[in-house]
Amino acid sequence: MTFEVLVNVSLRPGIADPQGATIERALPALGFAGVGHVRVGKSIAFTVDADDEAAARSTVEDLCHRFLTNPVIEDSSISIAAVAPVD
Amino acid sequence: MTFEVLVNVSLRPGIADPQGATIERALPALGFAGVGHVRVGKSIAFTVDADDEAAARSTVEDLCHRFLTNPVIEDSSISIAAVAPVD
Repeated sequence: MTFEVLVNVSLRPGIADPQGATIERALPALGFAGVGHVRVGKSIAFTVDADDEAAARSTVEDLCHRFLTNPVIEDSSISIAAVAPVD
Repeated sequence: MTFEVLVNVSLRPGIADPQGATIERALPALGFAGVGHVRVGKSIAFTVDADDEAAARSTVEDLCHRFLTNPVIEDSSISIAAVAPVD
């Protein structure tokens, strides 16, 4: 089976985010008041072949831990959806 | 009211994604077979103050269109959730 995966990688709370801070500082001058707590992260979308959703999740967690994130400073959230097979 | 917003910015289908292609090419050698269609994007999380969810969504769409994405090559998906007020 094929699963569609979306991994959202964000900086852990407390880790400085200069990119987010710059966006936040710029917005009021650009006419957007009331926007705060801006944090910029990465999103990685891909497909993975696995027997079932548990196997897919385990592969993706391993992938996240080893390559896609730096666990010291980054958190990841994973969403997985099965793709309907095309017959 | 305050709303928590997560904007996912991804490259439009058909736009070359060298970063995703590099990840995809590297994974089999690293022990992850069966991973494909890797696309790397940005995620931007922030809070926005607005009267209701419709107003929040309209602000965020404007923000996406004007600053957070390049609509020529990028798509964005928006998720909005109200934050429970702290009394």
